[in-house]
Amino acid sequence: MSFSVTILGSASAKPTPSRHPSSQIVNVHEQYYLVDAGEGAQQQMARYGINPLRLRGVFISHLHGDHLFGLFPLISTLGLYGRRTPLDIYAPAPFGEILECHLRYFDRDLPYEVQWHETNTTRHALLFENRTLEVWSIPLRHRVPCAGFLFREKEPPLNVEKFKIARYGLGIAQITAAKRGEDITLASGETVPNAELTYRPYAARSYAYLSDTNYSAKAARLCAGVDLMYHEATYAATERKIARERGHATSEDAARAASEAGARGLIIGHFSSRYKEESQLVEEARRLFPQTEAATEGRTFELPENRIKK
Amino acid sequence: MSFSVTILGSASAKPTPSRHPSSQIVNVHEQYYLVDAGEGAQQQMARYGINPLRLRGVFISHLHGDHLFGLFPLISTLGLYGRRTPLDIYAPAPFGEILECHLRYFDRDLPYEVQWHETNTTRHALLFENRTLEVWSIPLRHRVPCAGFLFREKEPPLNVEKFKIARYGLGIAQITAAKRGEDITLASGETVPNAELTYRPYAARSYAYLSDTNYSAKAARLCAGVDLMYHEATYAATERKIARERGHATSEDAARAASEAGARGLIIGHFSSRYKEESQLVEEARRLFPQTEAATEGRTFELPENRIKK
Repeated sequence: MSFSVTILGSASAKPTPSRHPSSQIVNVHEQYYLVDAGEGAQQQMARYGINPLRLRGVFISHLHGDHLFGLFPLISTLGLYGRRTPLDIYAPAPFGEILECHLRYFDRDLPYEVQWHETNTTRHALLFENRTLEVWSIPLRHRVPCAGFLFREKEPPLNVEKFKIARYGLGIAQITAAKRGEDITLASGETVPNAELTYRPYAARSYAYLSDTNYSAKAARLCAGVDLMYHEATYAATERKIARERGHATSEDAARAASEAGARGLIIGHFSSRYKEESQLVEEARRLFPQTEAATEGRTFELPENRIKK
Repeated sequence: MSFSVTILGSASAKPTPSRHPSSQIVNVHEQYYLVDAGEGAQQQMARYGINPLRLRGVFISHLHGDHLFGLFPLISTLGLYGRRTPLDIYAPAPFGEILECHLRYFDRDLPYEVQWHETNTTRHALLFENRTLEVWSIPLRHRVPCAGFLFREKEPPLNVEKFKIARYGLGIAQITAAKRGEDITLASGETVPNAELTYRPYAARSYAYLSDTNYSAKAARLCAGVDLMYHEATYAATERKIARERGHATSEDAARAASEAGARGLIIGHFSSRYKEESQLVEEARRLFPQTEAATEGRTFELPENRIKK
């Protein structure tokens, strides 16, 4: 089952000719979630072949324009495309008022419903849940209320080992019961424990999005064991002071957060326009956390399925 | 003196991977005017080397998002750049309310003033004037109140022919008087008529922007003698019916308007996303009006200075 992150935007607030402001698509089992929506998000989706009608939800970290201005054109376009499915948007207050302005002046007759869910940026709370996924808020330290997001895949259903089916001569009903986690009693009267028959096809995966923020030990702790972390790295390590003051992180802050969390991989982004090349920032982060990659626009980071025995 | 049009966006409402929504820069004597501001306008400006701090005014034809959503990020960015000069925006009502929403939620502490000037889309009226330029509204026929813009360069100041200065032995005071349009009395008592001494260095130039609109004979008449016209051509000639219904024009409508106006050149744009290549639309328009070009993004159309004798 797919679990991936596609970068749509990697810039901070000042636009550059080549980088778009913050935005990305998290694909969990072919359901798409838009995380932040800087200007141009919808065109970037079109460029990278992401059908906006498949958007299941939108998660906005905070109400700065470079994380939000791309959402309103997208809302309009989904109307032009005739979307019927409601669109759920998770964002801090007063997003509802901003949305109301937009709908009043631009989208009075939208063919679908836009549903705002207020995120409390001071709490680590479950925002969204379906059969395969949970999304949790991660309180961050920015100049305005801001929360990142932790995407936690649920454990996949149990599979029954094929060679065990043959060995014990299991029937359909027994296989179904084993998948539910039950122990199985054979015709001989022998009981086979569930653990003997079944396995998880892969370990549940997780992805954390932390932007915009100062380094936060608490946020790192809340992401413990995450497979992949995106952490903003607006500035180089030497600009620690500016980063602190502006509620942003350096390359080293990002690496430290990934390291503290025990993440397997780190993507850094939200690069200040002063860095024409992000290689300096990546190199700095890699010194502390070697598995660092730049948030190159258009790049998709796959979270592989790692099979585990139960 | 410069007079040119740079295309920032050539698409209609639905985004495509390669085309941005409507936006362009009119450069008159190195003062920049933004005409419509579809999403991505500021990034397009950055791409094509246009300094947004040099924007003198913004002209918005109508309040559909594909002509407007790029303005709000630009307003924010100009704040980040520390703009102090007020920004004048010409747009139909209720733009002021939309602007108020934006300022309330995103730009409470802007270091410059944004001044909205309401355009009456039913009148051909002078909207803006400075020493070198007038901008007039051109009522258009769209689904919502909409007006195009006519940029009229004022006549350049008179120059004095160099060989006449030598022939009549004119002094500084006499040259200055001649430039003001006065006849000159020589030391001999002879009076030289101003027309004998002076010339206009070039003919005043004009540019018309007509989008979005059905074909309008009245709009074409108001643009009589224009050097360059931009006319929307959302659809091919065969889609006349759809174009009519949706308040848009075909390639042929655009050519007809340019022809009726006696324009020297025509740019067509606002292409529907159904046309991957605009060549079909350009060819159709050229059959009626050969001097037609496509609104290719990044292309600058220069209006040359044509010297005229007075």
